[in-house]
Amino acid sequence: MNSVQLNSTHDSQRRSWIDSASTADTDFPIQNLPFAVFRRHGTSDMPRCGVGIGDLILDVTLCSSLFPEPVAVAARACEADTLNRLMSLDPALVSAFRHRLSELLSADHTKHREALTQALTPIQGVDLLLPARIGGFTDFFASIHHATNAGKLFRPNNPLLPNYKYVPVGYNGRANSVRASGDFLRRPHGQILVHGENQPAYLPAQRVDYEVELGLYIGQASTPDQPISISTAWRHVFGFSLLNDWSARDIQAWEYQPLGPFLAKSFATTVSPWVVTAEALLPFRSAVAARAENDPPPLPHLANETDQRSGALDIEIEAHLLTDAMARIGLPPARISRSNAASLYWTFAQMITHHTSNGSSLDTGDLLASGTISGPTGDALGSLLEITRGGAAPFTVPGTGERRTFLEDGDEIRLRGKCRRHGFVSLGFGECVARLQPAQG
Amino acid sequence: MNSVQLNSTHDSQRRSWIDSASTADTDFPIQNLPFAVFRRHGTSDMPRCGVGIGDLILDVTLCSSLFPEPVAVAARACEADTLNRLMSLDPALVSAFRHRLSELLSADHTKHREALTQALTPIQGVDLLLPARIGGFTDFFASIHHATNAGKLFRPNNPLLPNYKYVPVGYNGRANSVRASGDFLRRPHGQILVHGENQPAYLPAQRVDYEVELGLYIGQASTPDQPISISTAWRHVFGFSLLNDWSARDIQAWEYQPLGPFLAKSFATTVSPWVVTAEALLPFRSAVAARAENDPPPLPHLANETDQRSGALDIEIEAHLLTDAMARIGLPPARISRSNAASLYWTFAQMITHHTSNGSSLDTGDLLASGTISGPTGDALGSLLEITRGGAAPFTVPGTGERRTFLEDGDEIRLRGKCRRHGFVSLGFGECVARLQPAQG
Repeated sequence: MNSVQLNSTHDSQRRSWIDSASTADTDFPIQNLPFAVFRRHGTSDMPRCGVGIGDLILDVTLCSSLFPEPVAVAARACEADTLNRLMSLDPALVSAFRHRLSELLSADHTKHREALTQALTPIQGVDLLLPARIGGFTDFFASIHHATNAGKLFRPNNPLLPNYKYVPVGYNGRANSVRASGDFLRRPHGQILVHGENQPAYLPAQRVDYEVELGLYIGQASTPDQPISISTAWRHVFGFSLLNDWSARDIQAWEYQPLGPFLAKSFATTVSPWVVTAEALLPFRSAVAARAENDPPPLPHLANETDQRSGALDIEIEAHLLTDAMARIGLPPARISRSNAASLYWTFAQMITHHTSNGSSLDTGDLLASGTISGPTGDALGSLLEITRGGAAPFTVPGTGERRTFLEDGDEIRLRGKCRRHGFVSLGFGECVARLQPAQG
Repeated sequence: MNSVQLNSTHDSQRRSWIDSASTADTDFPIQNLPFAVFRRHGTSDMPRCGVGIGDLILDVTLCSSLFPEPVAVAARACEADTLNRLMSLDPALVSAFRHRLSELLSADHTKHREALTQALTPIQGVDLLLPARIGGFTDFFASIHHATNAGKLFRPNNPLLPNYKYVPVGYNGRANSVRASGDFLRRPHGQILVHGENQPAYLPAQRVDYEVELGLYIGQASTPDQPISISTAWRHVFGFSLLNDWSARDIQAWEYQPLGPFLAKSFATTVSPWVVTAEALLPFRSAVAARAENDPPPLPHLANETDQRSGALDIEIEAHLLTDAMARIGLPPARISRSNAASLYWTFAQMITHHTSNGSSLDTGDLLASGTISGPTGDALGSLLEITRGGAAPFTVPGTGERRTFLEDGDEIRLRGKCRRHGFVSLGFGECVARLQPAQG
């Protein structure tokens, strides 16, 4: 994969004095420093914003005196139950705040350790909440592999619609459906036209699916009536989470014409609680690989050489399945896919520019999701719709011999994301987990 | 039209001591008492909530001592820059608040007139703002006449899709695109596949259209995981505004497959600033007329005899066009359509029940729009798409001889809504106005 290093704060030599941040497999080395909103387990404390380091979370509000002006502004913004205030700040200020965090947590910085230790809590001992107040949630369709696989189920000879290679297709999701990892997920009821029936019925969905996605949080808002140019789009990116866009395929099939998916999606969308900053991801930017030589070039307002060369994100995302039966006999979750955000056809900069190209604005905390991330190979399919070809090809669950087309009650899906690049310290995203509860009786 | 009187506060005999509230053509007689958010013209005062009466607005915050407990709670909720607090209250409390307002403004109530007079301001002297903080905006497709007319342009022999008579089809709009009457409207740029071209281009939209709609504001929120039953849906309705869902048809045609309209809609949606309460509209509830005898009945969770008998709203909505040329020679706006919300196929109760039928919740201030309201006759078409049959049949603007297919720069669209029923005092909605500015250069 073609990677390009931009101006980054990533110092591969730096280690933290916190041991768990220096293990080979940690998601949260000192090079990451993701943000989350948390509350001590089982308390009704006011939630606040913290920073992940190893297996600990730093409660910035408990050590705010360690942050001199001007980064004190960012530290004070952590006294809030969402990241929105922090997200709304000048990216240069957030960067300076992260530099100070990195310095304080660095092994070669021996001061303030007592104050910091008192502000550090095991992540296991906190509840991680929805990271942002999300005003708008947009879901894109940026993986050409997913678009092709899904299109094939409807139009075998003509899977990709004519607009796909020109338009970063997206639609508005329902913002209040977005929940944090571990939060409630229930099999929805909906109108379904059962195969062979003449009339639909209101039934529990039988084809509940997950979708492996990446979610982008907008940092500084844009101005209404002022489209964001492709060259300035990244200035509005605060960071990324994993996102699972739960989908009821049978509800979707019946409802979606002519205005798109609605209730098939709005019953739940799960995000991982950690927001990995755009800055931390800089070393893992890569070239856009999915646009073929003979594809039409992006229209001028969506075209930018830098973006094509370094606007993709080399993030590997795995989906794991844990069924009730697996959990009962102590089996670990089984990986059912591994795909990479670098395989997306459209970049996040293109999505942002397209989103505002009609003059509409993006607000701090708005969530833009990639759409299902599928790759070109059979082990890189980001939904059961693709893995089982719309239910036609069931698979066998490792270890229990259970068969699956779509999700059964009690199935849990765990997404994990990882950035790896030679010469750099690997970063992770934490987990995005939810377990499907049975439909209401 | 079949109308049914429910339990209503409408006292046709009551008159206000405010003269302008007793003229025959006022939108705001004492039987209406709509709410709005306002600020004195040209000031930077904190906006607050007021009540329309004749050509005046009552600043409740300036006469709050006139509202004893428990309605003082509602009066205090008016000290806010959105109606959300008021909307979130128990409907019985809001009703008691309206009763007290009605009493205070009634001609047979002679006390407190000085205090009230000091709290009354001419509407002309205030800026009327967006009435609510809108978390979610959903646009439905509830007019079968509109669905048929629009469908005919794409599928002449099969205009109505198979799901139409079962599903109150809707999609998520972009909440931050919703603006108050009089606010900014600009011709958007977007990707357009110009007729005869092989490739799209990023251009100013040439087919900018309006859509005559009614918008519903959710009052009390629902609980996640608890669908709202059809028999309790109205408990969650605070009130209604007029809504113009501006649409760029050429952007829409190119972008909307397969996930629905997006940028073709999100450049602007205009609402009238006055929210007419569900209670004030009770005398104007009517039977559902659009569902034909041999149509399939609604599925059981969407079926309710009371709703079919009295769940429609007899609200006549007119669209008026004022072109630059008309304005220059002093012509009044010309009416280009008059349709009625009673002709909708789906009721607002059905939309609410459908919306929550998968367990997703509705929040206070959420906006649910009807979709374009068109009637069965040629003078009742709520969009230019329908009036000009997709641009194939231009019309002549009265008085100037200008031709129109879609909107030209400088065109202004004004929506007006009115409820009339024999034996009852007529109510109106105020105006929903915006003028199309040229695309950015």
